[in-house]
Amino acid sequence: MPCSYTVSFNIMPKLSDRVTNLPASPIRKLVPFADAAEKRGLRVYYLNIGQPDIPTPPEFFAAVDNSEMAVLAYSHSAGNESLRKQISNYYGRLGYDIKTDQIIVTTGASEALNFIFASITNPLDEIIVPEPFYANYNSFSLAKDARVVPVTTHIENNFALPSLEAFREKINSRTRAILICNPGNPTGILYDRKELDGLRDLAKEHDLFLIADEVYREFAYDSSEHLSVLGYQGMDQNVVVVDSVSKRFSACGARIGCAISRNEELMNAVMKMAQARLSPPTFGQMGAEAAYQLPESYFTEVVKEYAGRRDALKEALDEIPGVVCPDINGAFYAMVQLPVDSADDFCRWMLDDFEHEGATVMLAPGAGFYATPGKGLNQVRIAYVLKEDELRAAMKCLAAALTAYQARNP
Amino acid sequence: MPCSYTVSFNIMPKLSDRVTNLPASPIRKLVPFADAAEKRGLRVYYLNIGQPDIPTPPEFFAAVDNSEMAVLAYSHSAGNESLRKQISNYYGRLGYDIKTDQIIVTTGASEALNFIFASITNPLDEIIVPEPFYANYNSFSLAKDARVVPVTTHIENNFALPSLEAFREKINSRTRAILICNPGNPTGILYDRKELDGLRDLAKEHDLFLIADEVYREFAYDSSEHLSVLGYQGMDQNVVVVDSVSKRFSACGARIGCAISRNEELMNAVMKMAQARLSPPTFGQMGAEAAYQLPESYFTEVVKEYAGRRDALKEALDEIPGVVCPDINGAFYAMVQLPVDSADDFCRWMLDDFEHEGATVMLAPGAGFYATPGKGLNQVRIAYVLKEDELRAAMKCLAAALTAYQARNP
Repeated sequence: MPCSYTVSFNIMPKLSDRVTNLPASPIRKLVPFADAAEKRGLRVYYLNIGQPDIPTPPEFFAAVDNSEMAVLAYSHSAGNESLRKQISNYYGRLGYDIKTDQIIVTTGASEALNFIFASITNPLDEIIVPEPFYANYNSFSLAKDARVVPVTTHIENNFALPSLEAFREKINSRTRAILICNPGNPTGILYDRKELDGLRDLAKEHDLFLIADEVYREFAYDSSEHLSVLGYQGMDQNVVVVDSVSKRFSACGARIGCAISRNEELMNAVMKMAQARLSPPTFGQMGAEAAYQLPESYFTEVVKEYAGRRDALKEALDEIPGVVCPDINGAFYAMVQLPVDSADDFCRWMLDDFEHEGATVMLAPGAGFYATPGKGLNQVRIAYVLKEDELRAAMKCLAAALTAYQARNP
Repeated sequence: MPCSYTVSFNIMPKLSDRVTNLPASPIRKLVPFADAAEKRGLRVYYLNIGQPDIPTPPEFFAAVDNSEMAVLAYSHSAGNESLRKQISNYYGRLGYDIKTDQIIVTTGASEALNFIFASITNPLDEIIVPEPFYANYNSFSLAKDARVVPVTTHIENNFALPSLEAFREKINSRTRAILICNPGNPTGILYDRKELDGLRDLAKEHDLFLIADEVYREFAYDSSEHLSVLGYQGMDQNVVVVDSVSKRFSACGARIGCAISRNEELMNAVMKMAQARLSPPTFGQMGAEAAYQLPESYFTEVVKEYAGRRDALKEALDEIPGVVCPDINGAFYAMVQLPVDSADDFCRWMLDDFEHEGATVMLAPGAGFYATPGKGLNQVRIAYVLKEDELRAAMKCLAAALTAYQARNP
């Protein structure tokens, strides 16, 4: 009797090398375990993601409500002129002269970084970034087949920039840019004039772009002043700023950022990519336009709130044995060292196997913020995006988790 | 006497090859000339861009109005579960079984295409596309350093797909996918089952992705039926669909699209990129969720309106001497041949130097929709996104322009 076989091949078309090499986001990769913890009835303190709990200004929503638009149309590819005018005014109030055609509104700072990386790197080109850095810089560069070249900074030194020599060693014919985040995500550092002057000199000397991600600009504590690279004279061809309303106005879901440069050729390049994706979101632009007209006092209150949280967090962390929290004076993150071998394992264990008074904590494991293998293994990024009493409760929970974890793994 | 020189170099850091090679959008590159025409007091009929004048459903705006959110937060990177549920239901009503985890919500179909291209192409890899095609396919592939390989279709043949042999000739070890737009932008063609079956067989035979941009799915006229590649059995590893609310609900400014596939590995890859850019716009998702719950009757009316415009456009074009308008039975575009040597020059001239009864017309020059140099030079894409009487007036204006242009250039 003849026998018929059904042979099933699971042949599928090939995926790209770049996506195979793209690491999962350290900020989001534990989400399924947090979801499971919530399903088990636990309260999860989310300190993994820079999603502030600060209310979005009512003016933001009001600008979107009852718009009486008939058609929700594409906007200008560079963003509505009226929004760019308000962004220009905002920079004017800060003392930086930025014209509307030196601003291209993007779908979040993420898209701005994507457009800039695509505009300045050929495959295998290099961008120098102090590490630890915002993990997605890696994703954006990999997506362009470019490489992030890290210059390591250290927790003992509060993640201050190393000597210019350390940067100079990394510069070669493939180097296209130096990228900083100031105030720093994930480090909480605010760079001083001497550090920034050094980078300016290097960029000028080697014809590099100096890209500053300044989305946390207002979040500078202890009366320290944020210095934008936009203030440098004679650097119009080199300086590029990435900005966003996400943190500034607690409007992450608006997906409105921008790329800023006085380099006309670069902006023409970014504009070509902006045209290809048609336009940034219309509703978000409407809200952002209103938010950029808020008085200075809006920031005074928000900054005061964050400074209080920073104090509460630092105080609580300093009391936990074996934990190292550096000085933090900007943004709303701390890169913290824990008394564990693998923060990755520990963070997952907190979600999987631990609870303290019906709660647990979600943190972002540190290694994902480094490009150098083996760095940051015992560090975590903590986003202080909860109210002071919740932060204190979360830190108590973390302390209990560390005790339990050490008891479990003697 | 010593003499001091100020030598000014305008040295700037280098831009990437990819952006240097990126063509300006044929749909948007004439915008400055149209702006100038408006400033001179002219009425400009905008037929260059697929920005419908159809009112966005009131339900879309109502879902965004008075949301009572306190914080405009990031959504899930794959889009809100509640929106994906509605999209899944919508596909279910069309007869396609698509689960919520087979849908990733993106910032417009543009981002979906970007993510898919990034996921499947290494630099120099190839994607086969029938030309003329939506011009931004070129931009998205160039941005990934991949190549669009055209298979030319012809106006005399209403831009029908050529024989499978013409496709097979282009397939080599670098080929990763076949990409179609159905119904077609810019051609207005709706592919029939035989054409689609052929592409399915090719994709299966050569382990290629079969990517279908189906954002105009509902816009099929003359009782012709749109066939989604999602209906193919045994093609789960190959089939990818790109979709959007922009045209379906006249909500271009929402910037909400999606990537759909049953290929889990591909969706994991797309998800990594979705996580890196954090989330799609929150307001747009809220509106889209409401729109996907509209009854079928919404489309009946809209399709009737477009079919009427299509008839008006074709009738008017057929009356202009030397103009060739193919049969069009889907989307809301026509790729039309004009009695001019350079549609590029003619389109710009209409904006710069021409008026008819205080008005002029903006069209998209055809060459930008082809990858083969020298093709489409005397063609234009016309988007029939205005009411019938305005379309007729615009076509009168175009006829007058052609007469005047030919008189000027004998």
